[in-house]
Amino acid sequence: MERSSEIGVAVIGAGRMGLFHAETVSRRLPGARLVAVADPVGGEDLGADRHYTDADQVWADSEVDAVVIAAPARLHADLVVAAARAGKSVFCEKPMSLTLDDADRAVAAAQVAGVVLQVGFQRRFAADWAAARALLDAGQIGTPRLLRSLTRDPGGFDPARVPPNTIFFETLIHDFDVLRFLNPGAAAVEVYAVAEALVEPQWRDRGLRDTAAVMVKFDNGATGFAEACFQTTYGHDVRAEVFGSAGTATVGDARRTAMTFSGSGGRTIATVQSDQELFGAAYVAELTAFIEAVRTGTPPLVTGHDAREALAIALAAAESAACGQPVRVTA
Amino acid sequence: MERSSEIGVAVIGAGRMGLFHAETVSRRLPGARLVAVADPVGGEDLGADRHYTDADQVWADSEVDAVVIAAPARLHADLVVAAARAGKSVFCEKPMSLTLDDADRAVAAAQVAGVVLQVGFQRRFAADWAAARALLDAGQIGTPRLLRSLTRDPGGFDPARVPPNTIFFETLIHDFDVLRFLNPGAAAVEVYAVAEALVEPQWRDRGLRDTAAVMVKFDNGATGFAEACFQTTYGHDVRAEVFGSAGTATVGDARRTAMTFSGSGGRTIATVQSDQELFGAAYVAELTAFIEAVRTGTPPLVTGHDAREALAIALAAAESAACGQPVRVTA
Amino acid sequence: MERSSEIGVAVIGAGRMGLFHAETVSRRLPGARLVAVADPVGGEDLGADRHYTDADQVWADSEVDAVVIAAPARLHADLVVAAARAGKSVFCEKPMSLTLDDADRAVAAAQVAGVVLQVGFQRRFAADWAAARALLDAGQIGTPRLLRSLTRDPGGFDPARVPPNTIFFETLIHDFDVLRFLNPGAAAVEVYAVAEALVEPQWRDRGLRDTAAVMVKFDNGATGFAEACFQTTYGHDVRAEVFGSAGTATVGDARRTAMTFSGSGGRTIATVQSDQELFGAAYVAELTAFIEAVRTGTPPLVTGHDAREALAIALAAAESAACGQPVRVTA
Amino acid sequence: MERSSEIGVAVIGAGRMGLFHAETVSRRLPGARLVAVADPVGGEDLGADRHYTDADQVWADSEVDAVVIAAPARLHADLVVAAARAGKSVFCEKPMSLTLDDADRAVAAAQVAGVVLQVGFQRRFAADWAAARALLDAGQIGTPRLLRSLTRDPGGFDPARVPPNTIFFETLIHDFDVLRFLNPGAAAVEVYAVAEALVEPQWRDRGLRDTAAVMVKFDNGATGFAEACFQTTYGHDVRAEVFGSAGTATVGDARRTAMTFSGSGGRTIATVQSDQELFGAAYVAELTAFIEAVRTGTPPLVTGHDAREALAIALAAAESAACGQPVRVTA
Repeated sequence: MERSSEIGVAVIGAGRMGLFHAETVSRRLPGARLVAVADPVGGEDLGADRHYTDADQVWADSEVDAVVIAAPARLHADLVVAAARAGKSVFCEKPMSLTLDDADRAVAAAQVAGVVLQVGFQRRFAADWAAARALLDAGQIGTPRLLRSLTRDPGGFDPARVPPNTIFFETLIHDFDVLRFLNPGAAAVEVYAVAEALVEPQWRDRGLRDTAAVMVKFDNGATGFAEACFQTTYGHDVRAEVFGSAGTATVGDARRTAMTFSGSGGRTIATVQSDQELFGAAYVAELTAFIEAVRTGTPPLVTGHDAREALAIALAAAESAACGQPVRVTA
Repeated sequence: MERSSEIGVAVIGAGRMGLFHAETVSRRLPGARLVAVADPVGGEDLGADRHYTDADQVWADSEVDAVVIAAPARLHADLVVAAARAGKSVFCEKPMSLTLDDADRAVAAAQVAGVVLQVGFQRRFAADWAAARALLDAGQIGTPRLLRSLTRDPGGFDPARVPPNTIFFETLIHDFDVLRFLNPGAAAVEVYAVAEALVEPQWRDRGLRDTAAVMVKFDNGATGFAEACFQTTYGHDVRAEVFGSAGTATVGDARRTAMTFSGSGGRTIATVQSDQELFGAAYVAELTAFIEAVRTGTPPLVTGHDAREALAIALAAAESAACGQPVRVTA
Repeated sequence: MERSSEIGVAVIGAGRMGLFHAETVSRRLPGARLVAVADPVGGEDLGADRHYTDADQVWADSEVDAVVIAAPARLHADLVVAAARAGKSVFCEKPMSLTLDDADRAVAAAQVAGVVLQVGFQRRFAADWAAARALLDAGQIGTPRLLRSLTRDPGGFDPARVPPNTIFFETLIHDFDVLRFLNPGAAAVEVYAVAEALVEPQWRDRGLRDTAAVMVKFDNGATGFAEACFQTTYGHDVRAEVFGSAGTATVGDARRTAMTFSGSGGRTIATVQSDQELFGAAYVAELTAFIEAVRTGTPPLVTGHDAREALAIALAAAESAACGQPVRVTA
Repeated sequence: MERSSEIGVAVIGAGRMGLFHAETVSRRLPGARLVAVADPVGGEDLGADRHYTDADQVWADSEVDAVVIAAPARLHADLVVAAARAGKSVFCEKPMSLTLDDADRAVAAAQVAGVVLQVGFQRRFAADWAAARALLDAGQIGTPRLLRSLTRDPGGFDPARVPPNTIFFETLIHDFDVLRFLNPGAAAVEVYAVAEALVEPQWRDRGLRDTAAVMVKFDNGATGFAEACFQTTYGHDVRAEVFGSAGTATVGDARRTAMTFSGSGGRTIATVQSDQELFGAAYVAELTAFIEAVRTGTPPLVTGHDAREALAIALAAAESAACGQPVRVTA
């Protein structure tokens, strides 16, 4: 292919995920070019053509066709709106916003500008999750009755730096999207949630919630369970299941490789230790699909609307955990 | 061993489980003898020494040391009380009763009479469930944070013959016991439940609930999920998981044998089709343990108190499903 | 059933397997009665009606309908012949004999006497092995092309007490039978074998072979691999595979239960530590089938002919390992 | 990184593997540039800077630092020698040669020229194979005793176009390398092989061998089994196992994704259908490592010597299958 056909990409935010996405754009995405990285305090060494300290510089860069937003969550919505107004297509890390108003504002801005807006629910791009959805679409699972999605992170977090409701807005929001992904066409109507500080109980009074369990009722009668915890002893554990009238699909397997060892401790299988190990291919696949959507103008697989719907569940869950009662999901 | 040392057993109720238990006593339990089967309309051909049509005849039979109660659930509590008063040790199928008062009455009767009272939560005797509990007892799982137990039955039920709340009192009561079993020492405090008629939706208005999802909060901060459905396309699926501060144990595997076939349809593994196929060994193990408890006078592994506590959760779940609010568990 | 219909059984040899079989007869086989145990130096406490020190006493006991021969291998053939002449049906542990002449003699004696003769290849009764054979019989695997069977024992043997060629006659003879079982109707024609002393190399010069690898060519073009070793660090590992024109069946799974633990060492699964743990149910199933064959007069699933054919392969393998050349199997 | 630091690569041969490697160089290898593709009849559209019809043009191209040889096997050795003489580093698909003389010639040429010579045994780069070797290197498996490696291809071959001994030189050569890889430091000393035409029996007389079984004796006492067949009904099945004094590692799992489906046909897992699906990541990893070796001058993980040793086993296997006797491996 000709170099001129490459999509110019800027990555905004050079934290952990920004770094991974920048590497993907520069090294793993043949049709894309890392034009710029924007971060107030880092990211100079990621191989981009240019480095910016301010996102505004990105909007003005005519070689930037699309942006990958990996800044702190509270900035996401404004960045999406600004990018759209500058005519840049947007890939935004989850959560796309922290309020429904901001979500609606971001979706509308992209729509008005006619740019692609894709959100970082990468599990949809993981091979096993995608295979489960394919079975659903083929009718082999039938109508979903009960669903499950869970996230267990490997730990190592600093309780002092975890904003309230992070477990709902940043962690379980993935699971809420998965429940929706595996119950296509249904809408969440009510949520009941419990959240505790079981990893760091002494931080409970300061608002930390590191463990949560949620039930989500859908309008087709299905119920989904979601659970999350910030710490395991065995790495990163993410799984899901959809049980329907015709069958069950189970996804997620934390084993590191297909190698199995049998020794004096029995049979052992090494487990993955991070999201980037578990979802590395999915992170690349979601950006590959994004670049393809930008190139072809086709709608992305994960839309701003999806981000908005997952957020609505997360907001209801946070409220339910606070009040102890089931809470309706805002339509 | 001498024949005289055999424990004389009567099975009360010759339905599906009564038949299995009678066969176990007569053929799979070396230290027991099937003295009698009592059933108003069947059970003559189960190889017992005597057949009775009335349980009262059992109480009067001096060769009967212990009874296995497999009559309809609504009769359980009275039968336990009568058996205890007659000095017979009791193995009672779940649920031991349908009210907490009856549960307390049954427990008290056994206590006063000094007889063994064991309840039919056979999952505790399944090798993988028992192994998970052994890890818990050894401290390898740490403090439980999140638990899961599920029951999916193979279907074939007649909606007209399913009493209200059966899914809670007869099906999920197993899962509530498992949540307790895998969270030892903790007490359930609050329950939130949803129940639907997804298998037979036209029976919803007549009270059928064939699919249910439940969250149970424990006083140690752990939360358990329980789910059940009366019908799958792939047999009998029962699993559980306990995730604790030091590790996770997962149990239940519906594969029929360790044989794996690879052919034009990919890799396939046959699945078990009934509870007796999945839990056959556990059903034998629970009666073996019961006979041993009767012989030695040691406390059984599953007590009347366990039945009472699981029922308290089931009652709260049924109420929650009816009112749509979380419900406190009666201590 | 009436007690009078019970099959009277004598167990000859009260070693490890004799003990297990005696327990099975007395405790796990409803239609059988342990009339006698015969052993020159033990077995008095196995619950039999009578204890004999000499097998001749068994032949004279009119209440003995059938015998289970679990004496040392070198005595098997003579015991089979004597039992048959006394009109007793025979279950004989493998190997049924150590020479083909003895095998033929034993088979002929049973035939002349009209008694049942079954041999202790219990793997045929293990649920997964039987399921693989059922697929073969149903045509789902097609024509076998390549096969594998392996045995890895947990160790703990005393090199001084292992007769030469034990690995072929006592261990791999199971695998040779499995290769035949999974390639029904085909005959072994040539064998190539290697045998080493890798566990106890200092015993090599005294004839010990604790590790062996064998290739068996069949007359339908299929080739089978068999391997064995007397020691693992992880218990008892027995597996098999048949790859045919239409599919592959894989059997054998050393996991102890379906419980999986994930912790700081990754995912671990406990493994079985002995043949009685791995094949306990199969050992019971083979005796159950034997008693049924005795009762009904139907041919057993594993015949003296099967023992003879497996021995022919074992003899060829021992010779091949000694001479370093492929050796024809004696038809 | 700067563009000028890229390694210029030419791919010689635009068949199935040449195409895959060309795509890897142009799209999946950040530090490499696809300067040229050379093929007499194709490969113009693979995105290379230049297209050649003759390999000689590659030798003269000063922008080509390294070549990937994916031409027919009979041409490999001469191409390696010519490339080395032209000062180009070489990645050569297996087999590097069809005779030991050619292998020695190729190795010597690379040595004299001081260029990197790596051979396409990609399984060493597959995550599970590499993990098994890491356990070996860490001592956790102990001394290997028995090994297994197998290759089952998905079929679709044209018997008329399969040269004699292809199953040994092109298929099993992978397995012979794996046996060496999992028995590090040991040398193969003797081989016994059987080969049949079971997939296409009517081609047997014309020399086709589509199914083969091999035993390889090593000088440390270990024995390896290797097997191959050109056709399965379930895709591409490649596995290996090393059983050592301290433990066993098993690798290779043909499941397509971690998604499991349970439905009326039991539990099913989709299987991979091609080598590129099973080993896609390994094919990229081997070229990534090759480019790194070229850049840094470090020795490659798979050397010409490895190719020579695997070929020596393949030659002995072919001879053994022809003569029916074990054959010594040429040192």
